[in-house]
Amino acid sequence: MRSKKKITLIDNKKIDLTGKEVVLVQGMGFVGSVMALVCANSKKRFVFGVDLPKKNIKKKLVRLNNGKFPFLAEDKKINSYLKNSIKKKNFYCTTSLKPYSYADIIIVDVNLDVSKQNSSINKFTNFSLDLEPFKKAIKTIGENCKDDALIIVESTVPPGTCKKIVAPIIKSTLKERGLSEKKICIAHSYERVMPGKNYVNSIINFHRVYSGNDQKSCHAASKFLKTIINTKKYPLTKLNSTTETETAKILENSFRAMNIAFMVEWSRFSEITKLNIYNIVKAIRKRPTHKNIMLPGIGVGGYCLPKDPLLAQWSLNNFYNSNKNLDFSYKSIQTNNLMPYYAYRFTKKYLKKMKNKKIILMGCAYTGDVSDTRYSPVEYYYKLLKKNKCKIKIYDPYVKYWNEINIKTLKKNEFFKEESDAIIICTDHHKFRDNKNLIDNLMLKKKKIIIDLIGVLNDREINKLKQKHEIKILGRGDLD
Amino acid sequence: MRSKKKITLIDNKKIDLTGKEVVLVQGMGFVGSVMALVCANSKKRFVFGVDLPKKNIKKKLVRLNNGKFPFLAEDKKINSYLKNSIKKKNFYCTTSLKPYSYADIIIVDVNLDVSKQNSSINKFTNFSLDLEPFKKAIKTIGENCKDDALIIVESTVPPGTCKKIVAPIIKSTLKERGLSEKKICIAHSYERVMPGKNYVNSIINFHRVYSGNDQKSCHAASKFLKTIINTKKYPLTKLNSTTETETAKILENSFRAMNIAFMVEWSRFSEITKLNIYNIVKAIRKRPTHKNIMLPGIGVGGYCLPKDPLLAQWSLNNFYNSNKNLDFSYKSIQTNNLMPYYAYRFTKKYLKKMKNKKIILMGCAYTGDVSDTRYSPVEYYYKLLKKNKCKIKIYDPYVKYWNEINIKTLKKNEFFKEESDAIIICTDHHKFRDNKNLIDNLMLKKKKIIIDLIGVLNDREINKLKQKHEIKILGRGDLD
Repeated sequence: MRSKKKITLIDNKKIDLTGKEVVLVQGMGFVGSVMALVCANSKKRFVFGVDLPKKNIKKKLVRLNNGKFPFLAEDKKINSYLKNSIKKKNFYCTTSLKPYSYADIIIVDVNLDVSKQNSSINKFTNFSLDLEPFKKAIKTIGENCKDDALIIVESTVPPGTCKKIVAPIIKSTLKERGLSEKKICIAHSYERVMPGKNYVNSIINFHRVYSGNDQKSCHAASKFLKTIINTKKYPLTKLNSTTETETAKILENSFRAMNIAFMVEWSRFSEITKLNIYNIVKAIRKRPTHKNIMLPGIGVGGYCLPKDPLLAQWSLNNFYNSNKNLDFSYKSIQTNNLMPYYAYRFTKKYLKKMKNKKIILMGCAYTGDVSDTRYSPVEYYYKLLKKNKCKIKIYDPYVKYWNEINIKTLKKNEFFKEESDAIIICTDHHKFRDNKNLIDNLMLKKKKIIIDLIGVLNDREINKLKQKHEIKILGRGDLD
Repeated sequence: MRSKKKITLIDNKKIDLTGKEVVLVQGMGFVGSVMALVCANSKKRFVFGVDLPKKNIKKKLVRLNNGKFPFLAEDKKINSYLKNSIKKKNFYCTTSLKPYSYADIIIVDVNLDVSKQNSSINKFTNFSLDLEPFKKAIKTIGENCKDDALIIVESTVPPGTCKKIVAPIIKSTLKERGLSEKKICIAHSYERVMPGKNYVNSIINFHRVYSGNDQKSCHAASKFLKTIINTKKYPLTKLNSTTETETAKILENSFRAMNIAFMVEWSRFSEITKLNIYNIVKAIRKRPTHKNIMLPGIGVGGYCLPKDPLLAQWSLNNFYNSNKNLDFSYKSIQTNNLMPYYAYRFTKKYLKKMKNKKIILMGCAYTGDVSDTRYSPVEYYYKLLKKNKCKIKIYDPYVKYWNEINIKTLKKNEFFKEESDAIIICTDHHKFRDNKNLIDNLMLKKKKIIIDLIGVLNDREINKLKQKHEIKILGRGDLD
């Protein structure tokens, strides 16, 4: 599979592929770009990052080629990997199709977006999935790839996609090109990346599941994965079919989404019965069998959990002609969809008159210690407050500009100077949890209401703050 | 609190309580009797086991006083603890009320039974809880106890019970007796016992949660618990109120019940999509955050999981005047209630004609490696087969006589001799999982169908067995 004595011209740039294994990552989103860097830094090879020729994507690729990671990343390794690749000249991003013809390994990191229909802030009834962009991406591979390439799908897809969509498209396009369809390898292996400080590490030092369309695909996938993953410590897990690995990914995320949804009603329970749900959960977590019971919060965000449980439903309906309903998954999505609304209702109860109330939201990222604001529950919460004519400013040490809302966030010094009626903690950043002074400093100002929607404040802080301010914490009826 | 120079006559038996702390366990069911033995074997004290003067209960108490544990227990420690107590003469069971007046510590282990109404094998719509027996038990304490006793409720109760039921009853009865209500201590601390081989160990060497009605009750409970639990390794977890610990217990079990219910739809998913759900779950369990995702099975049984999630709902409706529904808990109970029916439907699909079919069920205990058949899902499954006129025999190495069905189980040699059309594995006993010959021996006989409802058979066995027999495993569509 090694390309030999090969110098090619891409975007008028001379690229030397001589003696190098060529890896192509298709889709340079957050997952794809980090995966590309991990590949480029793991072995002597050349890595192409390829994406669509759209204006905003092109900009991102140019930044990458200039050694600037286009996403705000908390993991310092990402930048050092990028700098190293630029120095070694083994990484190049482009919208050209040429790299497909050199690629020994093609990793598909193309997003599949779910649109929630008839879905409002407090309702979710239906959804649809547009597979066309994904199909188009796969077709691009088939039309341009070598006939003995290894294609690894990393995207989260409805179970059955590799068998029923990817393989047929690849094989028919190869056939149209007059090439053999026997040599191509198709595999599925999903990432389990954890956003935040240990992003790169969560690719390299973690359990990885894989499968292939056939024996040779399995073998090729395993051989490749061993070059990027610390398989001595984290041996690969092989499943029997691509549909099994596709299902495993969806089930993992559905499990998580369901366990989050489960706790929503227990937060309400604690508010009604005047208990401290955080302490109760911490007591329960001591049992190894119950370690993963979730804490309450403002909602579920990010790219995966709000949609993944629906992909299995889609698969049943569309690939397997079954009208079986995955009730728990559906109910999880419905419940989690409502979470920002619950948080809003909770807020309203204590703010009372909303109009012209000056509010500072602490945190807008979808989860703690990340800058990612995609599908952040804070977005829906913000919109509800805005609709009620609150005057809102944002402080998030990880987010300079909140794209989804189109708003600049406060700088730290601005945050401390800003006058407000209420401070609302929305994201579980360690910078909030660990920096006691951050909250204490607010005491210097006029009496205000402090609402903690994710249990960042500890008892010591609460006791101190409540001498002057009104403190309300979601799921803590014991403070009423 | 130490009783001094005290010799008492109970049931015409002289009991020397001189210089001994007196512990009374109220309710000598499985949990109560083991708890009593643990207390009797942990410190120099005298332990009374007290229960109601009913015929079948009296029999049990006599057996205990004769050094015979009345339940089939897999944990050898139980018998050695009992023998030791008989030898030391620090343990006595009775229906007399006299011991209440000597008790320094009273541990309440009285069951609260939930009746499921309009509930059939495949339906569950409503439930009721009869608190009267529990209230009566508490009244008995109040009418007979010392006014400075420590009462620890260990029973699983609707959150709020200690505050709204136990404390008022105790205090009013003390008052009626002209005693102070100031000195009494009321605490709640729930057990997390694991049935099976390590029963005793799961009391002593495990995390324990506790709370008290006031500071002195907390202190007294903590002091007592330290004498029976290895708190050096497993420090006690204190919660702020008895309602919080009551909730913690219910939430723990609801979490478990819900995670079991969640997997039901994924077993169906795997059957439809022809996957191996067991392998998928094993792959997912490698993630520490997903270690507790459940495997599919025939259903949920035992004394706790089928009912506990309903106790919180009862509490909201009855103690807190709230009509809020705990939807996930309800849906879990509904789904888990249906599990034996799914197993039956799965069985029927492959057995086809049921009438006069000779069937051997392997396992009738509610879970692996225990003899407990209370609320066993196999019971409902058995009844469904019976209704369809199957001829059923049972083999369960832990159960000699199946009380709920009123049937003697097969001895091992009978099991091997017994002719049948189908073997159905219902319980995940290690004796089934580890003893390969057990299943292999069945190969000697005529071709039959082997249905595994809990994934005991591994791939090697399946491959061997399927040369001659028809193998079907719940949740494994890949075998079709």
